[in-house]
Amino acid sequence: MTLKVTRKDDLRAGRSVDNGPAGDASSGPVKIAVDLLGGDDAPAVVVGGALQALAVDPGLRLILVGPPDAADAVIRALSPADRERVELHAVSGAVTMADPPVRAASRETSIRAAAHAVAVGAADAMVSAGSSGATVTAAVLALGRSSGVRKPPLAAWLPTVRPGQETLLLDVGGSMDCTVAVLQSHAGLGTAYWSQHTGQAHPRIGLLSVGREPGKGDRVRRAAEKAFAATDGFVGLVEGDDVLLGDRADVVVTDGFTGNVLLKGIEGAYRLATVGVDGASHGMARAAVMLGVPGVVVVCHGAADEGDLASGLAEAARLARSRRTGRAEHTRAGQRIRAERDVRAEQEQEGNR
Amino acid sequence: MTLKVTRKDDLRAGRSVDNGPAGDASSGPVKIAVDLLGGDDAPAVVVGGALQALAVDPGLRLILVGPPDAADAVIRALSPADRERVELHAVSGAVTMADPPVRAASRETSIRAAAHAVAVGAADAMVSAGSSGATVTAAVLALGRSSGVRKPPLAAWLPTVRPGQETLLLDVGGSMDCTVAVLQSHAGLGTAYWSQHTGQAHPRIGLLSVGREPGKGDRVRRAAEKAFAATDGFVGLVEGDDVLLGDRADVVVTDGFTGNVLLKGIEGAYRLATVGVDGASHGMARAAVMLGVPGVVVVCHGAADEGDLASGLAEAARLARSRRTGRAEHTRAGQRIRAERDVRAEQEQEGNR
Repeated sequence: MTLKVTRKDDLRAGRSVDNGPAGDASSGPVKIAVDLLGGDDAPAVVVGGALQALAVDPGLRLILVGPPDAADAVIRALSPADRERVELHAVSGAVTMADPPVRAASRETSIRAAAHAVAVGAADAMVSAGSSGATVTAAVLALGRSSGVRKPPLAAWLPTVRPGQETLLLDVGGSMDCTVAVLQSHAGLGTAYWSQHTGQAHPRIGLLSVGREPGKGDRVRRAAEKAFAATDGFVGLVEGDDVLLGDRADVVVTDGFTGNVLLKGIEGAYRLATVGVDGASHGMARAAVMLGVPGVVVVCHGAADEGDLASGLAEAARLARSRRTGRAEHTRAGQRIRAERDVRAEQEQEGNR
Repeated sequence: MTLKVTRKDDLRAGRSVDNGPAGDASSGPVKIAVDLLGGDDAPAVVVGGALQALAVDPGLRLILVGPPDAADAVIRALSPADRERVELHAVSGAVTMADPPVRAASRETSIRAAAHAVAVGAADAMVSAGSSGATVTAAVLALGRSSGVRKPPLAAWLPTVRPGQETLLLDVGGSMDCTVAVLQSHAGLGTAYWSQHTGQAHPRIGLLSVGREPGKGDRVRRAAEKAFAATDGFVGLVEGDDVLLGDRADVVVTDGFTGNVLLKGIEGAYRLATVGVDGASHGMARAAVMLGVPGVVVVCHGAADEGDLASGLAEAARLARSRRTGRAEHTRAGQRIRAERDVRAEQEQEGNR
C-alpha cells in the first residue's frame, strides 16, 4: 500500500511516497482504469489525483471511467502530448455509499466498467475511492476469485512505532461474517502479499484477539487459534495495539468487520492526537489492496484527497508492473460465471457492506 | 470513568483528574476493596496507587485484598493516624492473565475475595487491574447480575476532538460473542450510566459498524440495527472513528470483542502519535466500569501504572458515594446462586476472555 509517510526513515525501497516516483518498480508503460465516480468528493478529487499521478510517473496511462465532462477536466489540464496518455470510457452510473454494493453488478456503473477493463486486459489495474463493498463486488464479478479463495480480503499497511516497519492488517472490510477457513485463507493471501511487497520471506502471522494468552477471544477466534497452530510463522494471538507496536507480528489476520472498525478507530486517534497541530496522518494508509482476485485492485478511502488518489494510483502501477506475468488468469470466463452466481447468493446472506 | 486528562477544558464537574480530588462527589467515608494481586506489575503498582488515592481523598478507606507482605508495604508508608484507614484481607491466590477466568470462581483468589467484600457489604466498591475476564467472572459470581442483564458489559470513556465531550464505549471486553438482545441490553445500561455520570438525559446512541449508511455490517449488526430503530435516542450506525470524533453519538454500543480491539488500537495509535514526545495518553481511559451488576466494580488496565490505579480508586469512590442507596440489592442470595450456575455454563460455551 502506498502511504502518506512523514518520516523518511519509514521508507523501504520500492515504496512510493505521497506523489513521489514509483521507487524501484519498473517505470515501463502501465495502464490503470480509474473510477471517476468513486469517493465522497468524486469526481473532483479523482481528477486531481489523476493529474498528480500522471505528472510523476511518465509510464502511467489512464482509462478514465465515468462521465465525459469529468474526464474532460483531466484532458484539458494536460499538455497536448500528455493527452495521448489518457482515454475515456464513458459510463454514467455511480454506486454511492448509500447504495447496496450489489448495484455494482450493473455494467452501467463506473466501478463495474473499471473492473471489466481489467478483466478483458484493456487495463493492468483498477483504482476506486468508492464504497469498498461495491468495489469488492465489482472486482469479483468481473475478475473472478483466485483458486481456493471464497472471501477476497482488503489489506492495509499500518505504521508501527518501529522505524521502517509496518504491519499488514487484513481483512479491513472485504467481507463481514467469517469462518476459520476464511481467516486461514486471509493468512495465506496476506503472507504472499507481504512477501511480494517487502521482498522478504516468512512474516510473523498474528491472529487478532482480546489478549495474547492462548484461549482469548470469541468462538471463531478460539477455533481459529487451534487451526492456525500448524501454520508456518504463526506467533499466536495479538491485540489491537500490537498492530501498531510491531513487536509481535508482521501480518495480522482478522475478519472484515473487526479490521474495518480497528482501522477507522486508529485513523480517528491520529486525527485527535494531531488536532490543532498539523493534521498529519502519521503514515496511515488511506488505501487498501484487494487480495484473492486475479488482478490488481486498489481501494482508496472514501474520504480520500487528491494525494491519496495519486498514492493509490502509484501503488496500483507498482503492483501491475510487478505482476504483469500473471495476466492470462484474468479472463477465465468460467471462473467469472461461477463468481457471479456465488456473489449474488452471498449478497442475500451477507447484506451490503 | 476516571481519566488521565491532559486538557483542563476536557473536564466536567464530578470527573476526577489523575490523583486530584473527587470533584463534586461527596467526600464522605467510602470503603473500597482493592485487589493487590491484579495487574502486570502487581502488587507494587497497586500499593503505589493505593497510597496516592489515600493521600488525596480523606474519606477513602481501603480493604487491601492480597498477601500480608504487600499490604504491609501500604501500611508502613502511612502515618500512624492514616493506618486506621486500611485493613487487610489476607488472600494468597492470584488469577494471572494466563489463567482461565473461571479460576476467579475460587474464593481463595484475591479478585473473588474483593468481589465478596462488596457482596456482603463490607466494601462499597471494588477495583482490580487484573484480567478483565476474571474480574467479570468474580463480580458476577459474588454480586449476581442486575435484573434482565445476561452479559454485564465493561464501559470505557474515550476523549473526542470536541473539548469537554467524551464518548462512552461499551462493551470493551465483558463478554465476547453477542446477540441483538445483548446489544440492546448494553444500550440500556450505557444510557443509564452516561446519564448518571454526565447529569444529562437522552444521550445519542450509535451502533458500531463499518459504515454509517443503513444496512452496513455483519449479520448481528444488520439485525440489531432494525431492532434498535425503536430505541429512544438511536442515531443509527457509527464507524470506528466516530467514537473519537463525537459528532454522531454519545454512547457507542458494540460486542466485547470488537470494543476491546478498538480500544486497544486507539491506545496504540496515541502511543505512536506521541512516540519520542511525551508518551501522553491524550485523555484515554485506563479503566472501565462494569455495568449490569448490583455493585460498583472498576477494572483498571492490566498495564496500569500507579496513577491509573489511583484514578480507578477515585472513580470507584465517586460511583459508590453516588450509588450508596442501592446497597440492599447486593446480597440477594438467590441471584448469586443463579449467576454462579449461569457463569459456569457460559464459560463452557464462551471460553476465557
